[in-house]
Amino acid sequence: MKILTSIAAALLLPLAALAQTVKSPDGNVSLSFSLTGNGVPTYEMSYKGKPVVKPSHLGLELAKDRHASKGIHETSLMDGFTETNSKTSTFDETWTPVWGQFGKIRNHYNELAVDLLQPQTKRRMTIRFRVYNIGMGLRYEFPQQDALVYFVIKEEHTQFAMTGDHTAWWLPGDYDTQEQETQESKLSEIRTRFHDAVNWGNSSVAVFSPTGVQTALQMKTQDGLYLNIHEAACINYATMHLNLNDKNMVLESWLTPDATGMKGYMQTPCNTPWRTVAVSDDARDMLSEANSMIYNLNEPCKIKDTSWIHPTKFAGVWWEMIVGRNSWNYTDEYPSVKLGQVDYSKAKPNGRHGANNEEVKKYIDFAAKNGIDEVLVEGWNVGWEDWANHYKDYVFDFTTPYPDFDIKALNDYAHSKGVKLMMHNETSSSTLNYERHLPAALNLMNEYGYDAVKTGYVGDIIPRGDYHFSQSMNNHYLYVVKEAAKHHIMVDSHEATRPTGIGRTWPNWIAGESARGTEYEAFGGSRPDHTVILPFTRLQGGPMDYTPGILETQLKTWSNNPSYVHTTLVGQLALYLVMWGPLQMAADLPENYAKYDDAFQFIKDVAVDWSDSKYLEAEPARYITVARKAKGSDNWFVGGKCNEAGHKSTVKFDFLDKGRKYEATIYADAKNASYDKNPKAYVITKRTIHKGDVLQMTEASGGGFAISLKAL
Amino acid sequence: MKILTSIAAALLLPLAALAQTVKSPDGNVSLSFSLTGNGVPTYEMSYKGKPVVKPSHLGLELAKDRHASKGIHETSLMDGFTETNSKTSTFDETWTPVWGQFGKIRNHYNELAVDLLQPQTKRRMTIRFRVYNIGMGLRYEFPQQDALVYFVIKEEHTQFAMTGDHTAWWLPGDYDTQEQETQESKLSEIRTRFHDAVNWGNSSVAVFSPTGVQTALQMKTQDGLYLNIHEAACINYATMHLNLNDKNMVLESWLTPDATGMKGYMQTPCNTPWRTVAVSDDARDMLSEANSMIYNLNEPCKIKDTSWIHPTKFAGVWWEMIVGRNSWNYTDEYPSVKLGQVDYSKAKPNGRHGANNEEVKKYIDFAAKNGIDEVLVEGWNVGWEDWANHYKDYVFDFTTPYPDFDIKALNDYAHSKGVKLMMHNETSSSTLNYERHLPAALNLMNEYGYDAVKTGYVGDIIPRGDYHFSQSMNNHYLYVVKEAAKHHIMVDSHEATRPTGIGRTWPNWIAGESARGTEYEAFGGSRPDHTVILPFTRLQGGPMDYTPGILETQLKTWSNNPSYVHTTLVGQLALYLVMWGPLQMAADLPENYAKYDDAFQFIKDVAVDWSDSKYLEAEPARYITVARKAKGSDNWFVGGKCNEAGHKSTVKFDFLDKGRKYEATIYADAKNASYDKNPKAYVITKRTIHKGDVLQMTEASGGGFAISLKAL
Repeated sequence: MKILTSIAAALLLPLAALAQTVKSPDGNVSLSFSLTGNGVPTYEMSYKGKPVVKPSHLGLELAKDRHASKGIHETSLMDGFTETNSKTSTFDETWTPVWGQFGKIRNHYNELAVDLLQPQTKRRMTIRFRVYNIGMGLRYEFPQQDALVYFVIKEEHTQFAMTGDHTAWWLPGDYDTQEQETQESKLSEIRTRFHDAVNWGNSSVAVFSPTGVQTALQMKTQDGLYLNIHEAACINYATMHLNLNDKNMVLESWLTPDATGMKGYMQTPCNTPWRTVAVSDDARDMLSEANSMIYNLNEPCKIKDTSWIHPTKFAGVWWEMIVGRNSWNYTDEYPSVKLGQVDYSKAKPNGRHGANNEEVKKYIDFAAKNGIDEVLVEGWNVGWEDWANHYKDYVFDFTTPYPDFDIKALNDYAHSKGVKLMMHNETSSSTLNYERHLPAALNLMNEYGYDAVKTGYVGDIIPRGDYHFSQSMNNHYLYVVKEAAKHHIMVDSHEATRPTGIGRTWPNWIAGESARGTEYEAFGGSRPDHTVILPFTRLQGGPMDYTPGILETQLKTWSNNPSYVHTTLVGQLALYLVMWGPLQMAADLPENYAKYDDAFQFIKDVAVDWSDSKYLEAEPARYITVARKAKGSDNWFVGGKCNEAGHKSTVKFDFLDKGRKYEATIYADAKNASYDKNPKAYVITKRTIHKGDVLQMTEASGGGFAISLKAL
Repeated sequence: MKILTSIAAALLLPLAALAQTVKSPDGNVSLSFSLTGNGVPTYEMSYKGKPVVKPSHLGLELAKDRHASKGIHETSLMDGFTETNSKTSTFDETWTPVWGQFGKIRNHYNELAVDLLQPQTKRRMTIRFRVYNIGMGLRYEFPQQDALVYFVIKEEHTQFAMTGDHTAWWLPGDYDTQEQETQESKLSEIRTRFHDAVNWGNSSVAVFSPTGVQTALQMKTQDGLYLNIHEAACINYATMHLNLNDKNMVLESWLTPDATGMKGYMQTPCNTPWRTVAVSDDARDMLSEANSMIYNLNEPCKIKDTSWIHPTKFAGVWWEMIVGRNSWNYTDEYPSVKLGQVDYSKAKPNGRHGANNEEVKKYIDFAAKNGIDEVLVEGWNVGWEDWANHYKDYVFDFTTPYPDFDIKALNDYAHSKGVKLMMHNETSSSTLNYERHLPAALNLMNEYGYDAVKTGYVGDIIPRGDYHFSQSMNNHYLYVVKEAAKHHIMVDSHEATRPTGIGRTWPNWIAGESARGTEYEAFGGSRPDHTVILPFTRLQGGPMDYTPGILETQLKTWSNNPSYVHTTLVGQLALYLVMWGPLQMAADLPENYAKYDDAFQFIKDVAVDWSDSKYLEAEPARYITVARKAKGSDNWFVGGKCNEAGHKSTVKFDFLDKGRKYEATIYADAKNASYDKNPKAYVITKRTIHKGDVLQMTEASGGGFAISLKAL
């Protein structure tokens, strides 16, 4: 450890006296920039006087341009810079998101923009810092210039030099998936834990370094500071991972490559996404302010009329397939199918096809009865017989239903009951095929009255060799969102890249998966702390379609699946608060909700969009307690969720309107409840609550609580 | 040489006595199949009793399937086969092509289909041979079966074991281009000639082996046999190259990979393209029968109403840009442009933009006056400022004209004069971008009355890492052709893969480039023998848009370009016969045709589609003389073209109608003409010709002759 320290000291000297400094509006965050050594852009950051990012280098390594003559084209944007100008400014604006945790978001920062020149190449680059009370964002900007028109990024080298061996909640860096279990360890332990982490749950696909991790990376220092590194506005750029140098605890950007190994294709004028570091001595700020900073660093909404974008609660023909009782595919008759060649009307049905008229009607009736807006139907369209993992180009046409799914009649039936069907477009990651059929797919949605689509990207990307998180794939996801917007269709993208706040700019990108969702509870389970980590990590950039609400936690009660859900029943209710987002599923079967109809009442009641959110307490991987006010209503909802250790929560109702009475329905774990031994033991009580009241809630192992507060 | 022979003998033993043999209808071609060694599929082929392909192995090497468990999935389809069944049959049918060299084509072959089983894996495969009088085609077929559903081809190992060190006319094998100069050498000399071949004319992009060559590969044996190896119906498969083992003179298939290095993604039931070997002791058969065999091995026409597909003679705003006098782009003001962000109406014009209203009108007038059907206009649409070689995704939108190109007014003007404009869609190889815009592009064509589009694929393919001749790109080209067919649009694809007779099935794929075209005459030139090689090689699979008709062979007379055309002026006229195809350009400027209006008369007169073709004489890279009868007419046209050695041709008019008089106009090189010293010296004479007449024509160095015969 002594050696480590001296190496770090030698590599990263304090910034020169010439450093320029900009502070957050409240003065707590301080950011300094200077050129060090041979003109290397360098920054450092402190919080309340404590260093949180030690001097860290900034720069981009460029690939040799095969079309350019040798020489300066091979020079990277790493060093040799001089500063030609710098500007500081202040910005303060409050804006209204279309959906989210807050009804209003204040975007208040002090900015430092440093103009750099690389005299050898005559290339110019600006580094822009925005310093918020919660941390900072920085990005590289490349103005239009003759000396730098097109360039190829071999790697971005943005450093985040940590001040010590922090505790980190990390996912193995992976170019294709974020569906692993989060690991909790010291930074120095990542290397030894990596192998197990990759194999845990067998979810890793394309890892690249034994110290590579994903963002958002949540950390905690030994003196109690919370740090979160992520990115904002990742547009026309590859998703960033972080690679740790565990000799000196420097994290460095590591972009997702394309099939050729290159990581970015740029044309000036252009810029990178924002690289963000959030910092606070209060973990709750990671869940509120840090998330708002990501949105603030994105562009304002580009959709003029957003009236068609609405928060949505939905049920779906889905869990019964995930658990294995029914199937997406219609027939088991053929080794494989070729669309347009197989005649499904003559194929032998396998008798387990979930998306049949009768089953869908059952869900429509269920939704209509319980005030659920939409019904997702997966497996409605031909091609599921051999859809995954075959490198098959033409796997779906996105328009042809199976013979037992009457698309017109079912939509008509749903509409007659005030319910909508939700479209499902699994692409099998054959993105070129999806783009070829996208116009027809969107026209079909408009024709039958769908206003939302769940997209999926399971399996290896086609074009082959590309990765889920590359620049080209990020462009694809946004292309689909933009095309969908033209048709007034909301998008919920599964297996796409993790969000970076683009939902501010394109709010019809209403949710995404991009993490380990509830489905894994049917594949052996996720750890009980999973859902008190995700809000610190995956949800930094935007909401998740986590598909909560599995009240029948024992799957074997209705299927052959031996798995069980790793929360208590009440813990499932808490997820509607803890895992915020305007798209929320009631994912269990109607018959299971009928079994627990008193608990199901909370799912029926809970809002899914908020005018305010108050985090009452939070600690990564331990517990989160949050109160949220329903948008357009005076009702509040409170949820608490904890890890396997259980948790005692003191809920102070300070946030309620003074003098007002609230009818509270309290859903609590029973005394002897636990996620693994007694998950379905719960107690529902009602009482009146006023501002200032205090409730002591006891959360079971893997449990939680949920409270609805109806303003009287 | 002694060593070579003994190695060859040791490697390739004669087939076992159990061989099955099928002969061509005329008995000249004999094909034998058997399993040799450890169940290795093996064939050999003879012509008039002489071996032409020695025992050669057949098989495919499969890639390990990352989604399959280990074991049999890694077993290739190379050996371990037993024969379970075989069938022979005969086929004889005459069909009518939509366009081409012949009004009718007879498809007459004897077939042998061998069903193979690999007992270890339970996989089944059929090898089908079709034996024609001109040679044979073979392909692999994979029936639907449980043991082989999806598979990935690492390499196809189809051998063509040559009987000696033949003379070959070859292009360096290349995954991205066919625009090199053809090399003439012994097979054994390829390796030593390869480096020079690759660098000659600087056209090679992605070579893979120092003995890798392209198809169609034309060869000549020491005892005067002509051999041609190519492929037919390359659909949903990578383009085949050949790699030579120059120790034993075995050529072997070498497919074009994708970005991951894999070469084919297959789903049963499926088959490979046909691998063809044409053989004759008469070189003329290589130009007629061999070409017909390629078409015969393709599927019949899939377009029901072909009335909108028509032979087309066209002029174009093109040569003036190729030569460098004018530009495709509108402005030189910006280092680069971003569509939708640059305002062209405010950009400073460079004053050299070719596709301006005035210039296009000049070409429309020229076409109308001279009976030319269409006018191609390149550079009409925004984006040309930085279109090539930047790995730029969104380079064109295919719908937005430059401010000085009034798309409506110009089409209206053209139509008022009985002329059509021809659309141009250069994709810059950003194929995903083209597919995104293809619906709008085709709608635009329909809206303004275009019925043909010249597509272009210059530069590196996007998706990056892919190659021009890969399976996915071959699928792209055909996708565009099929989508265009829905809009009644003919396609002329440039820089696409070389044709394999798919024009029979999709006759709206009316032409392609896919070889070194006339443009290279402006880039330093092509050898004079170039156009007496291409009909043996490039044209085997379909017609070429060679853009002939450059009568002003000295470019410096009207530009700053020091290049000159490497034919005589009359040699250019001959190309309309020698380089057959239903799409023919009159590529020179109107003012140049005005200078040589008597010679231009031939271009005005010559037909571009034929009811019959008679090759009077031919020798690869030496000379070709052909007589063709205009479709729907009794007129004939005769053309001769030769290499730099000049040629004396005796034209016997045996093919004319008996007793009929023909008014002949004879365009001949003047006595002292030569392509390099005196190219524009020509003599035009008229006389009456009857069947049986004989003309002695003297072709200059790099020259030729052309005769139009008007039936009286």
